[in-house]
Amino acid sequence: MTRRLEINEVSPRDGLQMEPVNVPTQAKIAFIDALSACGFSRIEVTSYTSPKAIPVLADAEAVMAGIKRVAGVKYTALVPNLRGMERAVDGRPDEINLVMSASETHNRANLRMTRAQSLATLQEVIRAAAGLNLPCNVSLSTAFGCPFDGEVDPEQVIGLAGLLADTGAAGITVCDTTGMAYPTQVARLCEQLQRAVPGLPLTIHLHNTRGMGLANALAAFDAGIDRFDGALGGLGGCPYAPGASGNVSTEELVHMFAAMGHDTGVALDALLAVVGSLSGVVGRPVSSQLAQAGPRLRRFAPPAWLAEKFTQ
Amino acid sequence: MTRRLEINEVSPRDGLQMEPVNVPTQAKIAFIDALSACGFSRIEVTSYTSPKAIPVLADAEAVMAGIKRVAGVKYTALVPNLRGMERAVDGRPDEINLVMSASETHNRANLRMTRAQSLATLQEVIRAAAGLNLPCNVSLSTAFGCPFDGEVDPEQVIGLAGLLADTGAAGITVCDTTGMAYPTQVARLCEQLQRAVPGLPLTIHLHNTRGMGLANALAAFDAGIDRFDGALGGLGGCPYAPGASGNVSTEELVHMFAAMGHDTGVALDALLAVVGSLSGVVGRPVSSQLAQAGPRLRRFAPPAWLAEKFTQ
Repeated sequence: MTRRLEINEVSPRDGLQMEPVNVPTQAKIAFIDALSACGFSRIEVTSYTSPKAIPVLADAEAVMAGIKRVAGVKYTALVPNLRGMERAVDGRPDEINLVMSASETHNRANLRMTRAQSLATLQEVIRAAAGLNLPCNVSLSTAFGCPFDGEVDPEQVIGLAGLLADTGAAGITVCDTTGMAYPTQVARLCEQLQRAVPGLPLTIHLHNTRGMGLANALAAFDAGIDRFDGALGGLGGCPYAPGASGNVSTEELVHMFAAMGHDTGVALDALLAVVGSLSGVVGRPVSSQLAQAGPRLRRFAPPAWLAEKFTQ
Repeated sequence: MTRRLEINEVSPRDGLQMEPVNVPTQAKIAFIDALSACGFSRIEVTSYTSPKAIPVLADAEAVMAGIKRVAGVKYTALVPNLRGMERAVDGRPDEINLVMSASETHNRANLRMTRAQSLATLQEVIRAAAGLNLPCNVSLSTAFGCPFDGEVDPEQVIGLAGLLADTGAAGITVCDTTGMAYPTQVARLCEQLQRAVPGLPLTIHLHNTRGMGLANALAAFDAGIDRFDGALGGLGGCPYAPGASGNVSTEELVHMFAAMGHDTGVALDALLAVVGSLSGVVGRPVSSQLAQAGPRLRRFAPPAWLAEKFTQ
């Protein structure tokens, strides 16, 4: 009954890129090194996007060069295009992650390209990376709904996944970018994708925008998904959905699946210690329900008067 | 596939009793009247506990007398013992709710009695209420874990439910008082209880202490549970679990099940309007992920530059 899950920690990239402060390079490296000790399958370290577009990740090369790699952890980086891939190669990522949206307006707003242009760009990168033996995962944003276009037809997601798999993608991440997913929708799309691209590793990327993060994770798990993105402390978010909270918090994901008896590889105690240091990294209070309450079996002392009142 | 769910709004009792401020009686009445317009199956209006124990609910009689009842809504009140039941009768509650804990130390700390004493007290009330045709629901606290004793043996919960059903309880609510439940545990206990007390209405009462509120609600739903407690804005909590957040938020519960296509009877728009007024009621900022983000299909305007950049 125990299943082995793979947790991909995305906070160094997907979390920090949303923070208003510029975390110093050495602090990023120390943060990622602390994450490396926790037992993740993957850590998304940085992004090789234009420093003009995302200034806080302009130190991608220095961060990739500075981290201490731990055996068993795959260190990945986001790459927007061929030029980004060429920059990334020297940093020896174990995998690169490409991104496009399943909905047209979000793709245009987020990537300044039509979906057709993005697809061509991604296919170009996948083909070039194949020559370098560099695995390419693709994250499909707005797979469960778009803050501009509304509902997204599952066929759009399935169609893109199929085209990208045919081109040579090593995996697909289905992303609920602005927290519009609900459990039965998640289960249905996960089942459809497993049928459409059999054997291709699928990851689910959830946000907790409307409180359903873990409910959707449970639905994906029940539908057979074994790979989950998470961001420590629930960092991240989406600039196009104001008021929205961030990614599903990794510690709550790990805590839930551990309670259910599954093996995430991640040591919760070590992880909660890193959450405790997170406010220092980003310069603002960051927490999660779990970090505040502690693990479920945390024991509290009964009130002092109890012993006196009940003296048997 | 559509299921009819019953939502029981507990914030007027379980929420307000945890607030440090004393909400004026008229404000409570106005709040409950606003809730009455939302479509709940039940509203837990107040508690006939000792005004010394819970001073903020000392106006139980005035609140029950002051609210405008809406047909189809059951107005319930918490009753701790025979004396409380006698106080409650004049207020004509549609149902009373009794409470005891599944774990010994929590029962002693919360109710100042042993479980054996509590059980005898509850059975006395159930028998007296039968003579008045007053239905008694029983809420079993710490059914999924105790902050003092740790894991709670499901047999304790099942045994108590059986004894109370035999005595004449009209329903049982299984409560995750401090948010220790996890999905597979919820599913298992709900299934066991349905077998142990077949035909007896079961309600689940969840907290979001460790982020699993909606995941546990989903697990309970999948296990056949149709009745859910919730508190608007996630009000409430447990005095014995510091740092812990409150009940699962009603609006997030309703939003999730509505997205899944089920009928909760509750109008989400009306409910979110009441959430908007909640900070004014309790005198501190109160919200929920959903109240901040809005319903999942809320549309945002694309950035202004899009139209110019993509001119086809």
